[in-house]
Amino acid sequence: MTPAITYELIKKDKQTGARLGIVHTPHGSFETPAFMPVGTQATVKTMSPEELKEMKAGIILSNTYHLWLRPGHDIIREAGGLHKFMNWDRAILTDSGGFQVFSLSDMRKIEEEGVHFRHHLDGSKLFLSPEKAMEIQNALGSDIMMAFDECPPYPASHEYMKASVERTSRWAERCLEAHTRPEDQGLFGIVQGGEYEDLRRQSVQDLTSLDFPGYAVGGLSVGEPKDVMNRVLDFTTPLLPENKPRYLMGVGSPDALIDGSIRGIDMFDCVLPTRIARNGTLMTSEGRLVVKNAKFARDFRPLDENCDCYVCQNYSRAYIRHLIKAEESFGIRLTSYHNLYFLMNLMEQVRQSIREDRLGDFREEFFEQYGYNKPNAKNF
Amino acid sequence: MTPAITYELIKKDKQTGARLGIVHTPHGSFETPAFMPVGTQATVKTMSPEELKEMKAGIILSNTYHLWLRPGHDIIREAGGLHKFMNWDRAILTDSGGFQVFSLSDMRKIEEEGVHFRHHLDGSKLFLSPEKAMEIQNALGSDIMMAFDECPPYPASHEYMKASVERTSRWAERCLEAHTRPEDQGLFGIVQGGEYEDLRRQSVQDLTSLDFPGYAVGGLSVGEPKDVMNRVLDFTTPLLPENKPRYLMGVGSPDALIDGSIRGIDMFDCVLPTRIARNGTLMTSEGRLVVKNAKFARDFRPLDENCDCYVCQNYSRAYIRHLIKAEESFGIRLTSYHNLYFLMNLMEQVRQSIREDRLGDFREEFFEQYGYNKPNAKNF
Repeated sequence: MTPAITYELIKKDKQTGARLGIVHTPHGSFETPAFMPVGTQATVKTMSPEELKEMKAGIILSNTYHLWLRPGHDIIREAGGLHKFMNWDRAILTDSGGFQVFSLSDMRKIEEEGVHFRHHLDGSKLFLSPEKAMEIQNALGSDIMMAFDECPPYPASHEYMKASVERTSRWAERCLEAHTRPEDQGLFGIVQGGEYEDLRRQSVQDLTSLDFPGYAVGGLSVGEPKDVMNRVLDFTTPLLPENKPRYLMGVGSPDALIDGSIRGIDMFDCVLPTRIARNGTLMTSEGRLVVKNAKFARDFRPLDENCDCYVCQNYSRAYIRHLIKAEESFGIRLTSYHNLYFLMNLMEQVRQSIREDRLGDFREEFFEQYGYNKPNAKNF
Repeated sequence: MTPAITYELIKKDKQTGARLGIVHTPHGSFETPAFMPVGTQATVKTMSPEELKEMKAGIILSNTYHLWLRPGHDIIREAGGLHKFMNWDRAILTDSGGFQVFSLSDMRKIEEEGVHFRHHLDGSKLFLSPEKAMEIQNALGSDIMMAFDECPPYPASHEYMKASVERTSRWAERCLEAHTRPEDQGLFGIVQGGEYEDLRRQSVQDLTSLDFPGYAVGGLSVGEPKDVMNRVLDFTTPLLPENKPRYLMGVGSPDALIDGSIRGIDMFDCVLPTRIARNGTLMTSEGRLVVKNAKFARDFRPLDENCDCYVCQNYSRAYIRHLIKAEESFGIRLTSYHNLYFLMNLMEQVRQSIREDRLGDFREEFFEQYGYNKPNAKNF
């Protein structure tokens, strides 16, 4: 059987060791390092599939927890799967629902069998387990499924984290056994272990022995300082197999995308670009821009003078400020488009820098222009 | 001087007398009878200009009252006018602001000079007059401007209406005098008079003596029964000059678009298609469809099986129902697109029927299929 998901390593950056590669899926291939726009409820907020293709998205993420609860995975199965339901014919990755159970739900109780919790909207009693997470994701038909794991909060004690890592490993094995469509869908394992090097090593050993087609580094971007994230990546990614893609979950700030790529990460996702867009906050080549500010009322320049996206070619800061202040949803379409384009374009620059063996130099130039090197720089 | 707006009569329907024509503007020409999508705040809610062009919109409407108050007409003038501000290079019609002053504002006081009122959002004191309405619309740079009129509520006494019509005529003359850009922008007069034939006749005589490049029939679609609207049109449009376009303000239900065309109307506008779209209500070839209803949860057919729009080619009722229930704005994009397309396509069918001298037959067929002939039909 050919695995559903395969990774092709093209080359490594000579300055940093970052990987240029291609991930092949049943719904096409995409170059890595790649950013995946998030379509939580079977839609990347405000965007059409055609617009995502304009910005060259090859894969998007959708959330198992949300689709399970609404409209229900049975409806999406009947529709012919998530791709057909939402009119997206490129790759889709679904998470396991675990993160939402741990971050959104009320009154959760973790047992060996799975997690009991209450619906965050209507309070009803629910139960999610490795088997259930596989059943839902098999119904959704995503190209890449994620194993059901526990994502402990930061910080957690070594004792708690060790027990959690061991349970996550047992759950990973149950996920593999419950997965019914390995020929159509690739299942990734999730490395946990918090900031503890020994536990990350244990988690990698447990999971790689099960031979998943890809591995995520989980439990980061959960409130820890950025230097902790980078340190964990520094000792974790070298342990992972070279011939499988590595996915850093929940990361999407420009600096972390570059620093993660430098540490051998291939895939990223985050709601950041669309979430801040809804409040009128933009990522630009010169740093953060809050378009609602009064100083932009008569500013007829584009959001980013160095950007060639649809929004920056056609609309001014003054117009977009007006739309956002007037609560017109077209304003959020425009800011969402720009922010997603900005990150997709940033990843293309990262890949080009790897091709040219200059990702270290690119990092310096980008951080300087974006303002990350300024004292007290306001970042994300 | 060539007038900014001219009307070319192509032919009349032999069954009904409806007019097929072309309106020429400084920003291109459009065929009539035509429906104008409404972009109140310099955006047709949720839609991009490119999408409006996909559905062959040749002209849109925007609201002077709203743009005056936010972002301010001075900002739009500085931007190079409304076309440039909102990235729309086809025709724009702006209303005078009068209707909103009468329908939205608080504590209004009508004097010969103009109307004193309070801002509907912040309560500040404002004053709108014929001269101010022209100043604002000249700053916006719309292709078609509307005279500042009084739009009395329905019903109004003959005595009140007569005084109002006479004031509207005096205001129309002041508008013509205050209009500073007649070479770029055409100013339409607005015929008032409620349901009174003698007052409609008086209003037409007053306004046609001033020789506007087009005339609106105002004061309809303000709560009166549809047979009153049709009766008023029956005796009003024959009084209007043949060589000028006629615009029926605020009308956009499918039946009224057909019945208005039959009575010699050339232009229509209404927020109806986008307003009901936000609530998940659709216009289809088989009548009204409320996509939030539970029966559509597993209905994988398009909104309208006879529609060839982008939405009906790519998305199901089940998906759109999910998006609307989940309060995802992409759902409202899709329902807004479909409803606008439905009306634009209906007007193309009306024009084609005039070409073929069969608009009377088309009316019968459409009303039958849409369900208007059913007893207790639920319409708009």
